[in-house]
Amino acid sequence: MDFISDYSELLETEIEQLNLPKSPSNLYDPLRYFMKLGGKRMRPILTLLGAELFGQEKELAMKAALAIEVFHNFTLIHDDIMDEAPLRRNQATIHSKWNQSVAILSGDVLFVKAYELLAQQQSGDLRFLLELFNRTAIEVCEGQQLDMDFESRNDVTVDEYIEMIRLKTSVLLGCALEFGAVSANASEEDCANIYDFGVNVGLAFQIQDDILDLYADPEKFGKQVGGDVLSNKKTMLYLKALEFATEEQLETLKQLYNHQDPIEKVSKTRQLFSEIGARKECEKMMEAYYQKALEAIQKLSPDESHKQVLIQLADYLLVRES
Amino acid sequence: MDFISDYSELLETEIEQLNLPKSPSNLYDPLRYFMKLGGKRMRPILTLLGAELFGQEKELAMKAALAIEVFHNFTLIHDDIMDEAPLRRNQATIHSKWNQSVAILSGDVLFVKAYELLAQQQSGDLRFLLELFNRTAIEVCEGQQLDMDFESRNDVTVDEYIEMIRLKTSVLLGCALEFGAVSANASEEDCANIYDFGVNVGLAFQIQDDILDLYADPEKFGKQVGGDVLSNKKTMLYLKALEFATEEQLETLKQLYNHQDPIEKVSKTRQLFSEIGARKECEKMMEAYYQKALEAIQKLSPDESHKQVLIQLADYLLVRES
Repeated sequence: MDFISDYSELLETEIEQLNLPKSPSNLYDPLRYFMKLGGKRMRPILTLLGAELFGQEKELAMKAALAIEVFHNFTLIHDDIMDEAPLRRNQATIHSKWNQSVAILSGDVLFVKAYELLAQQQSGDLRFLLELFNRTAIEVCEGQQLDMDFESRNDVTVDEYIEMIRLKTSVLLGCALEFGAVSANASEEDCANIYDFGVNVGLAFQIQDDILDLYADPEKFGKQVGGDVLSNKKTMLYLKALEFATEEQLETLKQLYNHQDPIEKVSKTRQLFSEIGARKECEKMMEAYYQKALEAIQKLSPDESHKQVLIQLADYLLVRES
Repeated sequence: MDFISDYSELLETEIEQLNLPKSPSNLYDPLRYFMKLGGKRMRPILTLLGAELFGQEKELAMKAALAIEVFHNFTLIHDDIMDEAPLRRNQATIHSKWNQSVAILSGDVLFVKAYELLAQQQSGDLRFLLELFNRTAIEVCEGQQLDMDFESRNDVTVDEYIEMIRLKTSVLLGCALEFGAVSANASEEDCANIYDFGVNVGLAFQIQDDILDLYADPEKFGKQVGGDVLSNKKTMLYLKALEFATEEQLETLKQLYNHQDPIEKVSKTRQLFSEIGARKECEKMMEAYYQKALEAIQKLSPDESHKQVLIQLADYLLVRES
């Protein structure tokens, strides 16, 4: 999908030009390192696409787009500490390459940088942008807290899980798109609907992520298939399996929880989830959020031809691999 | 000093009404706990005084004042993790009462709350306030990084130390006062001068803090006298001692560094610093910053009678105990 890579390259150049100070080097070297680890820069792309959809030049939404990307990287730095993750995009995380204090403090500075970029955004109402950003940032933190809380709980419901992924990851996609719309001075209704589109695509994407973690083609997936199963993570597949399993299947699932052989644990759980119908249920759910996203598109005021880019985007994010 | 306690009480009520959400409780309970630990609320008082000095009602600077106090508390939460401090105001720190992830994440949320309060500030130019706040927040983080860097360095100069305390603590006092001035739509020059007043009072206050840590009357001081000496902290007293010591005194200082008996270590270091003249040098330095603060007051446009409150404030902060 070529148009995505054009935007990515543009953003990569902008990120290189962020011009972080040289000193104190223990504060800024880690940030230079981390911002270069890459990624598809999907979130700021959403802002630029959102701006263009409503007739604004993407350059005039650039600061808001960069604020989103910088904020996202801040959350990754702090999440990596909390999750004790040694690697991010196959490279050492900041707390493991430097130390934890450096990771906390450089994360904090990066967070301020996001607000600095936002303060430089000229088109669109600054107070409105700031309020949306604050609300989103708080929700992302709440989502991370719920995710951590769920690790020690055995009674997490499907609704609670949806709320967790909505907060932890989906609202930021909504915010990114709405930033674009606000920079184009789009109507309140258009802003609300493009936000809804982003949140629903985000929910579908996150459920797809749970499915792919177990069912993806290992050659295409890029990371270990079955990682969630091996760490006994309560994913949507797991919650749906609990919901639809027979007594006997529940018993098998319980045994698999402590299964010693990792390859067998993954393959048997995969088979069991399919038998129970958990995979089908997740796919149905994903489809439902995809449909909601399409409905949100329908309500937007731009011409159908202009809105095609959003459908293209959703299809790009929600490719079904099997 | 009665007028301070009136402001403190007003702020305490406002802080109680911040209305942090109930859930997720692992995110917000720690913040409710921490915000109640108290303190004199000096920084937000500066904002309210700054507003009144330029003819603004203090209520119309309240959101900006609260933003400053909430930001200050965020920095304390994260600093306590980095410093591995078990106590804050004689109560358990968040990371020791809950855990480190909770302290990181609740700190992050509190930081957003500061921006949320700032976004609610109606009088004064929002973009200007936001830019000043961002610049200050970044400087405070840089100061904390320098402070940590200094722990493992033996060649810290007096100028570097001044720059560290300017960033870590003084700029926030300047920012707090300027927030008040901005909320009153004071002139650019008045804003710059009241900021300068705050920074210089802050520098004098910080040097006083170093002196008091070793020379205060134990009964009045409220915490252990000599704490800096016992942890071999490179304070201004220490740097000035290095600068003015004879070869022989330097040798004694070196020996005291590893002295085993804590009471003797403190009393002997105190005596040595006095003999070297380090205390006198620090007092001279403190006086010089106090004078600079007074000069900044002179340049302010309000009537002399109105400016008395700033002199009163500086005298309150810079009480000399011996």
